[in-house]
Amino acid sequence: MLNFEYYNPTQIVFGKGSIARLAKLVPADARVLVLYGGGSAERNGTLAEVEAALGQRTVQRFAGIEANPSYETLMQAVEQIRREKLDFLLAVGGGSVIDGTKFVAAAVDYAGDPWEILETYGAKIKSALPFGCVLTLPATGSEMNSFSVISRKSLQAKLSFGSKHVFPRFSVLDPTRTYTLPERQVANGVVDAFVHVMEQYLTYPVGAPVQDRYAEGLLQTLVEIGPLALAKPDDYEVRANLMWAATQALNGLIGAGVPQDWATHMIGHEITAMFGLDHAQTLAIVLPALLDQRRAAKRDKLLQYAARVWQIDSGSDDERIDAAIARTRAFFESVGVKTRFGDYGIGADAVPRLIAQLEAHGMTALGERRDMDLALSRRVLEACL
Amino acid sequence: MLNFEYYNPTQIVFGKGSIARLAKLVPADARVLVLYGGGSAERNGTLAEVEAALGQRTVQRFAGIEANPSYETLMQAVEQIRREKLDFLLAVGGGSVIDGTKFVAAAVDYAGDPWEILETYGAKIKSALPFGCVLTLPATGSEMNSFSVISRKSLQAKLSFGSKHVFPRFSVLDPTRTYTLPERQVANGVVDAFVHVMEQYLTYPVGAPVQDRYAEGLLQTLVEIGPLALAKPDDYEVRANLMWAATQALNGLIGAGVPQDWATHMIGHEITAMFGLDHAQTLAIVLPALLDQRRAAKRDKLLQYAARVWQIDSGSDDERIDAAIARTRAFFESVGVKTRFGDYGIGADAVPRLIAQLEAHGMTALGERRDMDLALSRRVLEACL
Repeated sequence: MLNFEYYNPTQIVFGKGSIARLAKLVPADARVLVLYGGGSAERNGTLAEVEAALGQRTVQRFAGIEANPSYETLMQAVEQIRREKLDFLLAVGGGSVIDGTKFVAAAVDYAGDPWEILETYGAKIKSALPFGCVLTLPATGSEMNSFSVISRKSLQAKLSFGSKHVFPRFSVLDPTRTYTLPERQVANGVVDAFVHVMEQYLTYPVGAPVQDRYAEGLLQTLVEIGPLALAKPDDYEVRANLMWAATQALNGLIGAGVPQDWATHMIGHEITAMFGLDHAQTLAIVLPALLDQRRAAKRDKLLQYAARVWQIDSGSDDERIDAAIARTRAFFESVGVKTRFGDYGIGADAVPRLIAQLEAHGMTALGERRDMDLALSRRVLEACL
Repeated sequence: MLNFEYYNPTQIVFGKGSIARLAKLVPADARVLVLYGGGSAERNGTLAEVEAALGQRTVQRFAGIEANPSYETLMQAVEQIRREKLDFLLAVGGGSVIDGTKFVAAAVDYAGDPWEILETYGAKIKSALPFGCVLTLPATGSEMNSFSVISRKSLQAKLSFGSKHVFPRFSVLDPTRTYTLPERQVANGVVDAFVHVMEQYLTYPVGAPVQDRYAEGLLQTLVEIGPLALAKPDDYEVRANLMWAATQALNGLIGAGVPQDWATHMIGHEITAMFGLDHAQTLAIVLPALLDQRRAAKRDKLLQYAARVWQIDSGSDDERIDAAIARTRAFFESVGVKTRFGDYGIGADAVPRLIAQLEAHGMTALGERRDMDLALSRRVLEACL
């Protein structure tokens, strides 16, 4: 096992009816800004339930946080908070709303130009407004970690930051609040959570059986419940397990003490930036191709993955690896997320353009051993066609 | 899945050489009391390493915290802290030292008679001195939870308390610090961690596959590494995994959202109180007998346990349950912890005496369904003979 640190102070309040708990979770004298995305939180009653729980507190709203939350939008929330002297933030939504709220929380207090927060990856954050979350979309794990990804439209930039100051104080996870999600968002969430686990698991062995088995447990659970989450949108048990698995997939625990890859995410970000695909769509395209191209470096873990997650026990090593990758691809397809560039109308001419972007962004040494150069990324992208 | 709350703010610093990190983890101006047990921390160099890391800070020592930490001893530490105006505690040891330090931390600040802390199970704790831990014995999980068990010799009482104010600020887990532990303590730690998992896992299904697989992963890991931890005391990988598995076994995570039993612990406490057996010895005696007697109520989970932890897939239901219980018993014996009353010189006359104590302590409705009455406890105890 590698040396590690693990710290995660977010309080989780999980279950049906738990939004009412906001009455106690939010300080009684707080002046609250509720941040959310589009109108779905208004239409499906979640916002009303939240505001009822907040009772007599001063509550203002900030709507319109986008799917890739933008600096430009978020700075308007910062303005509102400063102007109205608000002191507690409540994110109601999925990963984008929560990521955006983290940036707002850090920017309100920030002494210099808030864009520095992103340019320095969060290193210069000294404090942040306290905030909580009401999760409505299981996917990113942002509700229980200290990371955030923010875009700046004017610069066509998408940057991430992290800081111990932007852990949510609490996150309310009520699975019933996901019943009305569109199928595509649920499917994307399943794929996103699955690939989060794979980035932290499918590397090379370091003698960390607890972390391995936790990761495998999450993968097996997502395999079981992914299709059910689509087929039975109001099945409490299925949605509860999807929610908890997605939170566990990226709260720091399964990645503590093991190597991490994240090349699929880095390549995927470039695809989203260039072609506007959903984040999860890019992951579903890149991961199977990457596993195939990296089968030598990842051999031991690929065989373990084949045996423990997919119960593939016969055939040569390469046959078992082939089968495990095929099952992974088929799983993504089974929840309706396509896994080839061609499915999204992207052709071979995209490859050199994406390579140029990876190079421009310094992504020339990716992966758990930092040995994935542009030539290898090119082969991965060609295998995505 | 049941509704749940999960909160655990303890920072874990894990790995070889991590004691040096105390230099940054402890506030620079802290006046520190280092609490420990017997002379082993002095003899094996851990205490010297700790004090070297603390550098120029004011550091005092408090030695002599016992295996079942006593109110009487701990109140001497409270005196010393008040007299010397110390403001940060550092527990160096295993579960007893950490449990004791939690009590001291809460008692120093406590307005009334500190014994009330235990009489009210921690409910009246309003604050506590900050403290950290340097773990030397993987077993109880106290390094990453907010619970503590304290004895008061004058009253022959052993009471537990819990409070969010007594989470360790940090815990340093350096597996090399366990190399010199006596075999018996290592074996006890393996059994203790295993039974902690079982108390939260082996109940009845509530549709919580993540928690189930996490628990099974810990059990499988303990089964693999338990005998190795004894055979190769200075194998870093083995000791690291034992340490992390034992911490994970009781930090609240695997028990979140599922029923919990704890009858084995409650009965075990009475055996320790009456006959002085090690805590883990009592668990190793009671658990196999309890699983056997509770096979109807626990049938589904026993079959799942047989299949997933022990790979027992053939035979009738009862045959598979028999085999799983036999494997459990054999595992405890394989690390040298005996599993029958007779092995410790305890005869049938103990049964009515223990039942009387359970009754005197109100333990008349134990287990995950609170349906384990004294008649059932008697059958369990008879099955321990």
